[in-house]
Amino acid sequence: MGIMDAAKIETLAQQLLSGEMPLEEFVRALARSPVAAMEHASIDLDRHRRCGFPEVVFGQGKSPETLQKIFQALLDDGVEVLCTRVDAENGAVLTQAYPDGRYNALGRIFRVGQSHQTQRLGSVALVTAGTSDLPVAEEARETIDWMGVDVNVIHDIGVAGPHRLLERVEELQSADAVVVVAGMEGALPSVVGGHVACPVIAVPTSVGYGASFGGVAALLGMLNSCAANVAVVNIDAGFKGGYLAAQIARGKHG
Amino acid sequence: MGIMDAAKIETLAQQLLSGEMPLEEFVRALARSPVAAMEHASIDLDRHRRCGFPEVVFGQGKSPETLQKIFQALLDDGVEVLCTRVDAENGAVLTQAYPDGRYNALGRIFRVGQSHQTQRLGSVALVTAGTSDLPVAEEARETIDWMGVDVNVIHDIGVAGPHRLLERVEELQSADAVVVVAGMEGALPSVVGGHVACPVIAVPTSVGYGASFGGVAALLGMLNSCAANVAVVNIDAGFKGGYLAAQIARGKHG
Amino acid sequence: MGIMDAAKIETLAQQLLSGEMPLEEFVRALARSPVAAMEHASIDLDRHRRCGFPEVVFGQGKSPETLQKIFQALLDDGVEVLCTRVDAENGAVLTQAYPDGRYNALGRIFRVGQSHQTQRLGSVALVTAGTSDLPVAEEARETIDWMGVDVNVIHDIGVAGPHRLLERVEELQSADAVVVVAGMEGALPSVVGGHVACPVIAVPTSVGYGASFGGVAALLGMLNSCAANVAVVNIDAGFKGGYLAAQIARGKHG
Amino acid sequence: MGIMDAAKIETLAQQLLSGEMPLEEFVRALARSPVAAMEHASIDLDRHRRCGFPEVVFGQGKSPETLQKIFQALLDDGVEVLCTRVDAENGAVLTQAYPDGRYNALGRIFRVGQSHQTQRLGSVALVTAGTSDLPVAEEARETIDWMGVDVNVIHDIGVAGPHRLLERVEELQSADAVVVVAGMEGALPSVVGGHVACPVIAVPTSVGYGASFGGVAALLGMLNSCAANVAVVNIDAGFKGGYLAAQIARGKHG
Amino acid sequence: MGIMDAAKIETLAQQLLSGEMPLEEFVRALARSPVAAMEHASIDLDRHRRCGFPEVVFGQGKSPETLQKIFQALLDDGVEVLCTRVDAENGAVLTQAYPDGRYNALGRIFRVGQSHQTQRLGSVALVTAGTSDLPVAEEARETIDWMGVDVNVIHDIGVAGPHRLLERVEELQSADAVVVVAGMEGALPSVVGGHVACPVIAVPTSVGYGASFGGVAALLGMLNSCAANVAVVNIDAGFKGGYLAAQIARGKHG
Amino acid sequence: MGIMDAAKIETLAQQLLSGEMPLEEFVRALARSPVAAMEHASIDLDRHRRCGFPEVVFGQGKSPETLQKIFQALLDDGVEVLCTRVDAENGAVLTQAYPDGRYNALGRIFRVGQSHQTQRLGSVALVTAGTSDLPVAEEARETIDWMGVDVNVIHDIGVAGPHRLLERVEELQSADAVVVVAGMEGALPSVVGGHVACPVIAVPTSVGYGASFGGVAALLGMLNSCAANVAVVNIDAGFKGGYLAAQIARGKHG
Amino acid sequence: MGIMDAAKIETLAQQLLSGEMPLEEFVRALARSPVAAMEHASIDLDRHRRCGFPEVVFGQGKSPETLQKIFQALLDDGVEVLCTRVDAENGAVLTQAYPDGRYNALGRIFRVGQSHQTQRLGSVALVTAGTSDLPVAEEARETIDWMGVDVNVIHDIGVAGPHRLLERVEELQSADAVVVVAGMEGALPSVVGGHVACPVIAVPTSVGYGASFGGVAALLGMLNSCAANVAVVNIDAGFKGGYLAAQIARGKHG
Amino acid sequence: MGIMDAAKIETLAQQLLSGEMPLEEFVRALARSPVAAMEHASIDLDRHRRCGFPEVVFGQGKSPETLQKIFQALLDDGVEVLCTRVDAENGAVLTQAYPDGRYNALGRIFRVGQSHQTQRLGSVALVTAGTSDLPVAEEARETIDWMGVDVNVIHDIGVAGPHRLLERVEELQSADAVVVVAGMEGALPSVVGGHVACPVIAVPTSVGYGASFGGVAALLGMLNSCAANVAVVNIDAGFKGGYLAAQIARGKHG
Repeated sequence: MGIMDAAKIETLAQQLLSGEMPLEEFVRALARSPVAAMEHASIDLDRHRRCGFPEVVFGQGKSPETLQKIFQALLDDGVEVLCTRVDAENGAVLTQAYPDGRYNALGRIFRVGQSHQTQRLGSVALVTAGTSDLPVAEEARETIDWMGVDVNVIHDIGVAGPHRLLERVEELQSADAVVVVAGMEGALPSVVGGHVACPVIAVPTSVGYGASFGGVAALLGMLNSCAANVAVVNIDAGFKGGYLAAQIARGKHG
Repeated sequence: MGIMDAAKIETLAQQLLSGEMPLEEFVRALARSPVAAMEHASIDLDRHRRCGFPEVVFGQGKSPETLQKIFQALLDDGVEVLCTRVDAENGAVLTQAYPDGRYNALGRIFRVGQSHQTQRLGSVALVTAGTSDLPVAEEARETIDWMGVDVNVIHDIGVAGPHRLLERVEELQSADAVVVVAGMEGALPSVVGGHVACPVIAVPTSVGYGASFGGVAALLGMLNSCAANVAVVNIDAGFKGGYLAAQIARGKHG
Repeated sequence: MGIMDAAKIETLAQQLLSGEMPLEEFVRALARSPVAAMEHASIDLDRHRRCGFPEVVFGQGKSPETLQKIFQALLDDGVEVLCTRVDAENGAVLTQAYPDGRYNALGRIFRVGQSHQTQRLGSVALVTAGTSDLPVAEEARETIDWMGVDVNVIHDIGVAGPHRLLERVEELQSADAVVVVAGMEGALPSVVGGHVACPVIAVPTSVGYGASFGGVAALLGMLNSCAANVAVVNIDAGFKGGYLAAQIARGKHG
Repeated sequence: MGIMDAAKIETLAQQLLSGEMPLEEFVRALARSPVAAMEHASIDLDRHRRCGFPEVVFGQGKSPETLQKIFQALLDDGVEVLCTRVDAENGAVLTQAYPDGRYNALGRIFRVGQSHQTQRLGSVALVTAGTSDLPVAEEARETIDWMGVDVNVIHDIGVAGPHRLLERVEELQSADAVVVVAGMEGALPSVVGGHVACPVIAVPTSVGYGASFGGVAALLGMLNSCAANVAVVNIDAGFKGGYLAAQIARGKHG
Repeated sequence: MGIMDAAKIETLAQQLLSGEMPLEEFVRALARSPVAAMEHASIDLDRHRRCGFPEVVFGQGKSPETLQKIFQALLDDGVEVLCTRVDAENGAVLTQAYPDGRYNALGRIFRVGQSHQTQRLGSVALVTAGTSDLPVAEEARETIDWMGVDVNVIHDIGVAGPHRLLERVEELQSADAVVVVAGMEGALPSVVGGHVACPVIAVPTSVGYGASFGGVAALLGMLNSCAANVAVVNIDAGFKGGYLAAQIARGKHG
Repeated sequence: MGIMDAAKIETLAQQLLSGEMPLEEFVRALARSPVAAMEHASIDLDRHRRCGFPEVVFGQGKSPETLQKIFQALLDDGVEVLCTRVDAENGAVLTQAYPDGRYNALGRIFRVGQSHQTQRLGSVALVTAGTSDLPVAEEARETIDWMGVDVNVIHDIGVAGPHRLLERVEELQSADAVVVVAGMEGALPSVVGGHVACPVIAVPTSVGYGASFGGVAALLGMLNSCAANVAVVNIDAGFKGGYLAAQIARGKHG
Repeated sequence: MGIMDAAKIETLAQQLLSGEMPLEEFVRALARSPVAAMEHASIDLDRHRRCGFPEVVFGQGKSPETLQKIFQALLDDGVEVLCTRVDAENGAVLTQAYPDGRYNALGRIFRVGQSHQTQRLGSVALVTAGTSDLPVAEEARETIDWMGVDVNVIHDIGVAGPHRLLERVEELQSADAVVVVAGMEGALPSVVGGHVACPVIAVPTSVGYGASFGGVAALLGMLNSCAANVAVVNIDAGFKGGYLAAQIARGKHG
Repeated sequence: MGIMDAAKIETLAQQLLSGEMPLEEFVRALARSPVAAMEHASIDLDRHRRCGFPEVVFGQGKSPETLQKIFQALLDDGVEVLCTRVDAENGAVLTQAYPDGRYNALGRIFRVGQSHQTQRLGSVALVTAGTSDLPVAEEARETIDWMGVDVNVIHDIGVAGPHRLLERVEELQSADAVVVVAGMEGALPSVVGGHVACPVIAVPTSVGYGASFGGVAALLGMLNSCAANVAVVNIDAGFKGGYLAAQIARGKHG
């Protein structure tokens, strides 16, 4: 919701004065969005309505106690919690606290609660350049699944073995969106982008050594991709890569 | 088209041998994609089929003669040419060569030929943080239009004047995808991302001075956006930002 | 203005319904801030009320026509226009358009209109490390003056000639805030900071060569200052350095 | 104190010669500032007079023994000690050595001694973008409190949930200065700066991952802020952010 | 294998139709390369034919279980396995699993299986600037040996002791290719390059401190070498340096 | 030539004393290499013997007068001069001075004198990713030709149009070495490397914009190539790329 | 002059009171250093006494008028003026204004006035790696000469032609200090450092291209030099390199 | 020793032939320098004669066994061993192996053997900006002492407490050379340089946080120093800073 201009407010006010609109409805039309205020956090309960999905919890640097308080506010709001960057220690505490929750240690994801998606829509191809990109891919895979979109995972088809990619092209072309997870030189999204007609979300990973500079080489490679349909997210940002691809995929079918 | 495996080839070959499939069709099923080879360029005429849109010409560093040869190959293939990064000098030469062409000096775009889109589909909101981001936005606008998607341009709503954004929120929320063009600190995509339920393609610009480092500050700001639905393209890459947004918008309606 | 909560809106609505509050006043309490919308710009006319000073125009990359349209909107609003980054060419056009305007070629500043400050308050010491830092200092000086604050300019007291600074210490200590403009190693703010009891706003300049990297060395030096009272702004950001210092100086006397 | 010029010294000398000024007073007028010399440290006991506040101890890389020697010199001088960057191990030793001291483990701050402020003056709003910025905010909060200024802490109002900020705007507008602590893209200071009429001290934090580069992305975002009233300090420099804001706030009321 | 053009396919098809070419041979001429697909990896078994050597396994970030699966696929294919970046822990597990394998702890290399080289060809000089460059040199040495090329190792002849290099010049001049492994300022390849008539493969190492930036200084030094015959690989990329040199050496004798 | 050890010198001296070796021969065995000393330059006339090819002249920043003096020293020594980085202005002067010389304006190369190669040996494939990489490729082409090696130029087969590369694979596989010239993301060498069994010399170019950072993105991509047979030279270093490839190619046939 | 402590001042005061010391002498003992204050500059006339040499003028970014005012203040003080970074335009104006002055266009140095050195002392070897480093070397040469020290210039002995250096070693070993001016990989100072027993001042130059990054590669190479006697100054800082070497040389003989 | 030219060799040879020069002397005049070759190291025993001091051992990354072998070669050559970067673990082993050795844990230095300096000459002032710079200063102090030069250590006189420096100026002015060790903004060398007439060797340290980038800010500050007499060494290079200063100091008295 934005801020209304004077004309709109005047119209509403006249509807209120004329009795056309009850007070309660008038207030709802103008009032602020709901926020759950805690000691060190403010949960945005309006996100689902505004952005299509509930707020996702960034687990890094938060204590298990803080996480549980945030989870409760979200569970009370009726949504399935997706929490990223949950390390093994926190993962163990949360697993004990929420026996129904599922912890993906590789992807560092914790999920708990009933799915808020009534129906699965669309499909995303999730590609890695090498086996070492797996953890970031898992973060993406969980996110896409949480958003009610199907995932087709294709591992280890980096550009130095060109035939590995070529024989999967048909699978790639049938997806609504593609997520490409790659470290080192980050060349795979360009090559994939040249084969498909949908957006490619490129996720650089910190896999590599030396002049890979923790993923900077892959990031720059992807930003400079000569393929027109490649957009990029942060290094190791499996969550964001998955989120965007799933959003696009649902959009095509929603 | 990918590379076929042995089984598939064998099946096809047996159909050929049995007379089930004529030789011409057999060859077409296996042969390479069409490429228009020139002295210094190889035009990918198969791009339209494979990626949904014809090849876009990157005009930077090419002579007008080279450009015209490439244009001809594409026009002969029946598509509308979109050429980016055409400086004023080349723009003048091309305008003379193609009286039907349109040169957008601000966006450095040259277009010529009949539109290959049979129908306009979807709409993109194109937002700038400041007036100086206009040239990059124009490159995006032309691209989106070339792809047959409607554009709603909203200028100069950077974060330091927060009310300017808030009163356009409804427009943003009604778009199929949003392109945000911003220099300096590049904060606008995060703020926009928090208001909408569709993907936001962030285009950092080289607008700024000092520690903006020719757009690096904006680029990093966008990559680190705390909004989940923000993907990023290269600095000043108005074309790519527009391309991705239009692709997403068409996907929702196609 | 923030967004009201439901309770506040309900109270106001009841005052409206009861006739306690006239419709016009009710609308003003809830409506958005004034924005002057143009083709490529949105002027924030509410800035004066919200932030204490009218919007300052960033002249870089804007045509003289655009600048004049913006100026007019501001002048109509009754404020003195301050426009930064006006190059010589635009400066000449504007000087002709506004015979009452003043163009500072060194500081690349154009000012026009009656001062909106009813009274001058406070004083700022403006220090340069070397003669080459003059243009950036001029931008700061004009800004401070525009904000109705006195400026004491002290030039060329860089650290390699330590006695030059020591004999100006008393002047520095009597200021409400100090702006230090320095390139090369950017050491001067640290030294000044150790002598005074007020905030020091450090403005790195791109003066230098080689490993000064266009002001990066000075910027890093200032950010790492071991003096507690040194804050930093962007490279060559004379405007911002002056703005902050003047804001602090007025605050002490307002 | 600066270095006097010949005229001033001559005047003083003539007062001495004429008996107008006693020898003791003459010496005090000319002599150097007091410094407490130790084996590996030189404590600046004149800082309080010169800069308004006693020297703050930078605890990083110092042994507990060294710290205690420095503390004693300061306590003997009658001031409350503020020591930053005290890790848990040193914190435990110091707590045992000074039972009256207070160790803030999150903010890595140790304080001991009677407050040197006779009266509390002014108020600062201290804002964080996310829960993970808490440690840096705590360092700022302790510093502001040590300087005798009130603090209003507002947590977790980052830009992706825009309504969280909007409903705290009035609180922000009533502060004498605002400290904004933010990692990732560092966009919050720009947005806050657009709502308030006082200086905003932006503290980038190393919170984030990938292309946040340990706080560089946030730092650049803040330096390039399009809001005129945003100054920046070093990454994770909660102390310096708090110091400057408190200095400004006291200045307005002192 | 590339993709054939229509003419070639038609010719082959006509040979098939005429009976000139049996079906099996026809399929082999057109079918894709063999890939061993596993859960998280795709082994490129065609590499040996295409690139002259079998696929080398990048051990970093892979579990011992994954490594063993990959090893098995390669051993089944009849090649000697070369696995790089095997840490001590994985080295111990693999040593137990393959009693015939050899683990080089310094070079972090694991090798197992019968050599696939029928004959040793050529010789490479492998030079280090200092003793600390040894681990990277060992990775290169093992790789060269695995490729069936002789290695002459010359240690610790960095440029600050110029006579150490001068007395080994004849050895360097007799090699088919030289690998120079150096950290710090990375000057050695330039000096070696000026003495020999064969390619010099420069391997920067992360040896150094301060402004060596983990090997960046050495890397830049090597890239800017004024010697024409110096090519560079990634920081610490002993494997790649060895691979290229051995490939060149075999080429001269193959 | 290295420095001899005492034993070798003693042996030679005894041959001299015994009359076994004439004085002239003795001196030649021990004396220094020939250097042509000029006012501002020292020409290494021994390079041909030591490194296989005469010294190549780096034309950048040298006046035409200096260049002509250097040329003369080399021509007097009987070699064909290759001078790189000759801008248009110098090219015109040199063309007039040496009517037999050939100036390649695109590649900024000037050559003059009779070829010193008695026979052409080997062949190099020279590949560009895009038409804009042409000038760098021309520098490489001239160098390879000067060294007496055949060149097969393949233009504009960047990765976004994957079929363009695939149909040239056989040509690539028949070369003795491959030079790949590419800007933007620099992905092409990795893809080429996966198809061939010879060394690939990757030459990053400054072609691109934004986050290509003048070739840094391409450089990093190439250094991090997952293909084992890719070595890298400096940005825009067409000369060096060509030199190394030709050296390898001659080595295979020499 | 430092700041005196109380005891010293008391002693002086008692000497003044007792008539032992005249008032004038007393004032001189305590008063500040002489500074020539101008509108935009403060000339440090005490530099000669304090640092051994008069202030050197940094000409960059100063108008000819400002330069002449500064020159006059220095000439009035009886010293020879050395002004660096004087571009051709300013050089012409100054040559006309001071017919006795000498302008070195290559080194961008202007000198005027009688030498302040009564006797020439010591000698410096000034070495360049290549002919393109000449301008920076000229700046150093003029500076050394101005300081009354002899210079032995040795040009173009970069490391790729190792014999060129070796035959000049004796000259290098006889100098009191060596200045090495080098661009590209900056390897020459390390090699020179290994041959001499005096300090080597390394001056990186911006000569090079691509990954030389305007001298950064050379700078890093020099900072990481494995030779113990190599200190570094800023990129292209011929003046500073010459100054330090001459200071060391005079020190050995002064 | 350099390489002789033909004339010199001929002269020597004729002296040999005429019996003027004995064979042994002839060989010594021409033969190479002594090098102690080990398995992984080559010790430069000629360094003492060539460079004035024996080779210093870089302890980082070497095993205690390797270190002891190198020590033995040097001790056998009659020099006092100086070994830098010896961590605590190696320090303990070496202390046990050489009971006469001295290990400085703070400075990570191990020394053993009789001093090779017959007489102490000159004096160096060694200054730190803060207590945390102590370890680097200790490395410098040990080195200076090993070279037979006196050291005057002055700690903790950073620029934010300007009086601390001013009262030590006389001590600084009496030194033959000054080493300034500083982290954070690295401003101290500039200030010291403005007070003294001898060279200042600036040693940046990695002390600091955030945008100090492990010493880069200090390094850049020092390289850009506006004081003419400041040369710089690598970050944390206490050894090199001490070496150069001691070399200069001995030079003045030797």
